[in-house]
Amino acid sequence: MSKTNPGNFFEDFHIGQTLTHATPRTITTGDAALYTALYGTRFAVQSADAFARGIGYPKAPLDDFLVFHVVFGKSVPDVSLNAVANLGYAECRFLKTVYAGDTLYATSEVIGLKENANGKTGVVYVRTMGFNQDDEGVLTFVRWVMVRKRDENAAALAPTVPALAKSVAVANLGNACPTIHTAHWNNALSGSVHRFDGYAVGERIDHTDGMTVEEAEHQLATRLYQNTAKVHFNQHTERSGKFGRRLIYGGHVISLARALSFNGLANAFHIAAINGGRHAAPLFAGGTVYAWSEIIEKSDLPGRNDVGALRIITRATCNEACDKFPTAEATAEEPGVILELDYWALLPR
Amino acid sequence: MSKTNPGNFFEDFHIGQTLTHATPRTITTGDAALYTALYGTRFAVQSADAFARGIGYPKAPLDDFLVFHVVFGKSVPDVSLNAVANLGYAECRFLKTVYAGDTLYATSEVIGLKENANGKTGVVYVRTMGFNQDDEGVLTFVRWVMVRKRDENAAALAPTVPALAKSVAVANLGNACPTIHTAHWNNALSGSVHRFDGYAVGERIDHTDGMTVEEAEHQLATRLYQNTAKVHFNQHTERSGKFGRRLIYGGHVISLARALSFNGLANAFHIAAINGGRHAAPLFAGGTVYAWSEIIEKSDLPGRNDVGALRIITRATCNEACDKFPTAEATAEEPGVILELDYWALLPR
Amino acid sequence: MSKTNPGNFFEDFHIGQTLTHATPRTITTGDAALYTALYGTRFAVQSADAFARGIGYPKAPLDDFLVFHVVFGKSVPDVSLNAVANLGYAECRFLKTVYAGDTLYATSEVIGLKENANGKTGVVYVRTMGFNQDDEGVLTFVRWVMVRKRDENAAALAPTVPALAKSVAVANLGNACPTIHTAHWNNALSGSVHRFDGYAVGERIDHTDGMTVEEAEHQLATRLYQNTAKVHFNQHTERSGKFGRRLIYGGHVISLARALSFNGLANAFHIAAINGGRHAAPLFAGGTVYAWSEIIEKSDLPGRNDVGALRIITRATCNEACDKFPTAEATAEEPGVILELDYWALLPR
Repeated sequence: MSKTNPGNFFEDFHIGQTLTHATPRTITTGDAALYTALYGTRFAVQSADAFARGIGYPKAPLDDFLVFHVVFGKSVPDVSLNAVANLGYAECRFLKTVYAGDTLYATSEVIGLKENANGKTGVVYVRTMGFNQDDEGVLTFVRWVMVRKRDENAAALAPTVPALAKSVAVANLGNACPTIHTAHWNNALSGSVHRFDGYAVGERIDHTDGMTVEEAEHQLATRLYQNTAKVHFNQHTERSGKFGRRLIYGGHVISLARALSFNGLANAFHIAAINGGRHAAPLFAGGTVYAWSEIIEKSDLPGRNDVGALRIITRATCNEACDKFPTAEATAEEPGVILELDYWALLPR
Repeated sequence: MSKTNPGNFFEDFHIGQTLTHATPRTITTGDAALYTALYGTRFAVQSADAFARGIGYPKAPLDDFLVFHVVFGKSVPDVSLNAVANLGYAECRFLKTVYAGDTLYATSEVIGLKENANGKTGVVYVRTMGFNQDDEGVLTFVRWVMVRKRDENAAALAPTVPALAKSVAVANLGNACPTIHTAHWNNALSGSVHRFDGYAVGERIDHTDGMTVEEAEHQLATRLYQNTAKVHFNQHTERSGKFGRRLIYGGHVISLARALSFNGLANAFHIAAINGGRHAAPLFAGGTVYAWSEIIEKSDLPGRNDVGALRIITRATCNEACDKFPTAEATAEEPGVILELDYWALLPR
Repeated sequence: MSKTNPGNFFEDFHIGQTLTHATPRTITTGDAALYTALYGTRFAVQSADAFARGIGYPKAPLDDFLVFHVVFGKSVPDVSLNAVANLGYAECRFLKTVYAGDTLYATSEVIGLKENANGKTGVVYVRTMGFNQDDEGVLTFVRWVMVRKRDENAAALAPTVPALAKSVAVANLGNACPTIHTAHWNNALSGSVHRFDGYAVGERIDHTDGMTVEEAEHQLATRLYQNTAKVHFNQHTERSGKFGRRLIYGGHVISLARALSFNGLANAFHIAAINGGRHAAPLFAGGTVYAWSEIIEKSDLPGRNDVGALRIITRATCNEACDKFPTAEATAEEPGVILELDYWALLPR
């Protein structure tokens, strides 16, 4: 038996199977500092203990996407080492605030399997859970990936495709957000006078700034998350691969877009849920990422008058400013969209 | 009203105006580790809790320039987002020691305004203050920047130009430095037998080492400071800009020069004040930074016999060794000087 | 007397001389986070406080090689600033667990001197010790370097060459490893079902993954260790040097190989000793590092039934996959081996 992990192939998965992922991870203020250095994020709640305490947290929580990337990273060796493509996310919810010092681990349950007609690959759906050191769930999401079959001649099973929500229900937002003392929320320090009531459905915001990505940066980030997907790190093999170069982890683009979105959404301090995400095109080092956001829904949170939820689609582009609000459905003259992320963010009222 | 920060234009400033800058920031040992990784700084007081405790600190203080860059970075979105040029610094004083765990925020007061003759730009002078979580001032400095006018036809106001000290008075040094138990200062561990008495006015020191800067490095640094100046990050626009490439944050050069200066000034453990600074030329990735220093003044500190102050000019060069002590006033054959920094440093006696 | 450290030349060393190295260093969770970002290491004991506590540590210990690099870095300005080559290591033992918050300092004793026949250089052997804030030894190793003579006409002394052990005795392993509660060792979380008993002498493991190194990465790492060797940082001088480019610190290769070795040696949680190391060829930025390991010896630890020791040779290559297990003794058709590291690792039983 080889001691090297070959990754799971399509035939290795079965419905109901639970995978316990390796390497629990204590996230520290060191990780938070690196996250700031990698993206330049400026949301006051995550940046400053004093600000966080003033509004009701015991101290600054970790950035939601740092938590997401760490949990996601754990699932890679078991779920997507042999993946041809990451196809989508759904039903992502943040369940409990994570602080520096917490140790995270993750499990995934196989909830869907569907072989492709070509007999070479199949789609695997997993629901991944992240837990803290007290076995409390901190994050859950579904993702589906296209995985190679070990044996193309293996018989196809009857497909199981899970029913997934188009968006996370409002009743399920807010679990990871304590009651916010909005009277202590200082707009000057948070960077914007616009709170929940200041945004309207249909509003579009160009985040204006651009950030060029270097190879060293995305590699540092992806290793920080202990994500082992080979395409991000090995130029020796990627040189002769499909793109001729290393592919940047999609989550790196998400975090860049989120950090850029501060300029226009400074009070959107907490990602409560991700409804879906699509990487419309790959990003490579040397590309400059821009972003813009559209408010597509607004909602109160049941039983809470401290915060409200905005459903936002943030789109990221490569080498294309967002003043014309490009979408991935645009014509070939606007090919720059690389990400569309549909999520719920909380803002103070 | 746009939710995206357009930055302030010259007409948006008025004398006496106070700007409270966004995003307070808790600085942690994670930031300190990154600072070490970015510059390789080796001053024992900031590097080791045990050394710092031995001489009278409760634990290792944060590097003075890390504090400076964080406070400076906060002022960028409000002061210099539309700046054409950063023209100078003065009257910079470190007022209180900053430790990992402290949360910093910043305000700036407009103290000078002077429109340029071309009617397109004006010079804005601000006094920026950094505070900790207890509202104690930790840092103050004046800087002035050339800012675009929104409307070139707007009438010019009468100019106000503040009177600025050529150098910080000796009575104002030492606030951020506790009493040092010099008997416990271990020269072998600090890296030099040369204390305050070992230096003479007029002495020149070539720091000998060179450090090549990569794009990923200065971007990580500048994001760590949450400095949002666009020219440092956006190759997509800078490609067609004045230099064709991203400009490195001037503070990155300062920190490199300070770290290099360890080799010759190992016991200059604390920057008490910055009298002035000038970026004689821009630095770009791929350049190798060298530095040399000149002692231009020596002074006791009133009422203290533990430490003395050296007034130093440290010059940094790009792609030019400093064994011939080049200055920015040199002939065209010596164009390599990029920084001249005039500051007071404290050394044990 | 110059205040700039010129480094020691061969004539400056004498047998029995003790060098106290500058700049003690408190290692923090910030350094640990950077170490993870630089190498992507995934060993559960060092990654997670909760895992470490479960098996008997008070919290997650720091990575053994992070400790090694920090202690090694301290010795560079005094031992190898004028080194032509780092020739070898031996008798490296980890003596005490190091945790975030510990302050390390280092001393070296000169134990061997041998002038080369050409009269230009000589070999200096030192035994370096790393200590924590309580003056307890945490690490010891011997290394030898070829150092330039200041004066080629200086008379040669009688050579002294220390007798060095081929490998560290088994009785000397385990000092830095507390008693492990193996019943609490969770194979799913640690990433492998293979414990000490699962490995056999002669077994060879291809670690399969490759990691491409960028200039910014090795510079960040080497500065993090406060290692000042000029060849790693100065492209301005290296451009006209032997290789035309910056040389990557050999320890960076060691840490990359160790991190890659997780895939096949996930339960080899602690490096107890390094028997020897050889950098067969230099590594430069842009190269992709692979690794494979061979088990060359197995041993119980006297008086302990919780852990066993594997003696392993891990070889790293550049731009060459390790599925054919290349060695540095191979023909010219397999020139890719850059490192051979012979060490003892502990695994749970």
